[in-house]
Amino acid sequence: MITKNTIKTIQSLKQAKYRKEYRLFIVEGKKSVEELLGSTFEVQALYATEQFLEEHDFHDERLEPVSEVQMEQMSTLDTPPGILAVVRIPEQNINQDEGMVLALDGIANPGNLGTIIRTAEWFGIRHIICSEDSVELWNPKVIQATMGSVFRMSITYTPLEPYLETARSNGRPIYGALLKGENIFQKKQWDEGIIVIGSESHGIRPSVLPLITHPITIPRAVGSVTESLNASMAAGIILASFAMHL
Amino acid sequence: MITKNTIKTIQSLKQAKYRKEYRLFIVEGKKSVEELLGSTFEVQALYATEQFLEEHDFHDERLEPVSEVQMEQMSTLDTPPGILAVVRIPEQNINQDEGMVLALDGIANPGNLGTIIRTAEWFGIRHIICSEDSVELWNPKVIQATMGSVFRMSITYTPLEPYLETARSNGRPIYGALLKGENIFQKKQWDEGIIVIGSESHGIRPSVLPLITHPITIPRAVGSVTESLNASMAAGIILASFAMHL
Repeated sequence: MITKNTIKTIQSLKQAKYRKEYRLFIVEGKKSVEELLGSTFEVQALYATEQFLEEHDFHDERLEPVSEVQMEQMSTLDTPPGILAVVRIPEQNINQDEGMVLALDGIANPGNLGTIIRTAEWFGIRHIICSEDSVELWNPKVIQATMGSVFRMSITYTPLEPYLETARSNGRPIYGALLKGENIFQKKQWDEGIIVIGSESHGIRPSVLPLITHPITIPRAVGSVTESLNASMAAGIILASFAMHL
Repeated sequence: MITKNTIKTIQSLKQAKYRKEYRLFIVEGKKSVEELLGSTFEVQALYATEQFLEEHDFHDERLEPVSEVQMEQMSTLDTPPGILAVVRIPEQNINQDEGMVLALDGIANPGNLGTIIRTAEWFGIRHIICSEDSVELWNPKVIQATMGSVFRMSITYTPLEPYLETARSNGRPIYGALLKGENIFQKKQWDEGIIVIGSESHGIRPSVLPLITHPITIPRAVGSVTESLNASMAAGIILASFAMHL
């Protein structure tokens, strides 16, 4: 039986402060929990409602039944899907520095970060570097938007400037998504390196800009007056363009 | 001076039911309102807080000052940007059936619809057709995510089946984003026609599937186990692929 105290702790995980303190985060929904259980992440507890267990063929010896009311108290979603896991936040992986790496400079919107992670995995990216002021990875909205991809990717938070300086001095190209740069639709070759995507409101920050060795751009249609693309959309289109040349 | 009754009416526009009844919707934020004022949309009222007017160089004879509290009452956002317009919902444009048309089959998430509209404009699409069960265009979250593009696009809600049947009998290709189809990265040519994108959870519906003449697919990296891309991301990558051949 789940205790009131446990429910209170799980409720507190809606806040970044307590996720950091307890080193725990929440995963909800059948698909995300299945992906979680197939990963190396350490599941601390797993709860489901009776209704969920009646409607789904879902078995795991760690499953603890909870009432609808208890689930509503713990859930981070308006419509609780009926299954929720409490998961240990892993130690940061050391980035292997192999293959194409995606570097995110201050992405602030959780949905955008989650969508970028999901899309990056689709196109074969294994490593993502986030500047330390990026939205926190364990935010429930990020986890939700990754649709399970977060459990299979190496994602590291670190200041971008020293990371990119080292990569550049190792001879790796640093691609930067800018409004002026090489047209990605005419690009004939990508060498493995780092693709930098700026934040939703400020783009790539001034201290990172001089580290870009290859400015790239997504061309806009003639006559279009749109000023920019959504940050996750820009990331996805650039990754598609890279993947096209693999 | 704004009256309590007017505030109450504007508050009601947060609900689709009242937007439909009054034929009015809300636009908020400097950038979106600027795009609105440069469009053919009919502005019924324009409100700004003193703080907004002190901080921004913004002039329009229709501007009515409101207090912070009044703005908070009217705003659809957690952090009201300080400027809000009430706008007449236009009559549906008749689709001109020229150029590439994007058809959306049941997109349910407002952020996805808004992002698709913004990205479509970037890549030179002028016409979007939405199935009638798609999320409503005048939802504040849709308007917000379009970043002003909504004021420059022709967007029509209509049942997709008869629309696509007519287009097909006129010899136009009907491209459909599916998990199996022609690899868009190897596609050498696009003819002007209709690109159909399915909904977030169900894809393209069974009654629309037989109308697709050209199944297309976004290839996944070898070894990737992601099951799908976000619907707006898929739309954006397909539009980029099409724009590349213009």
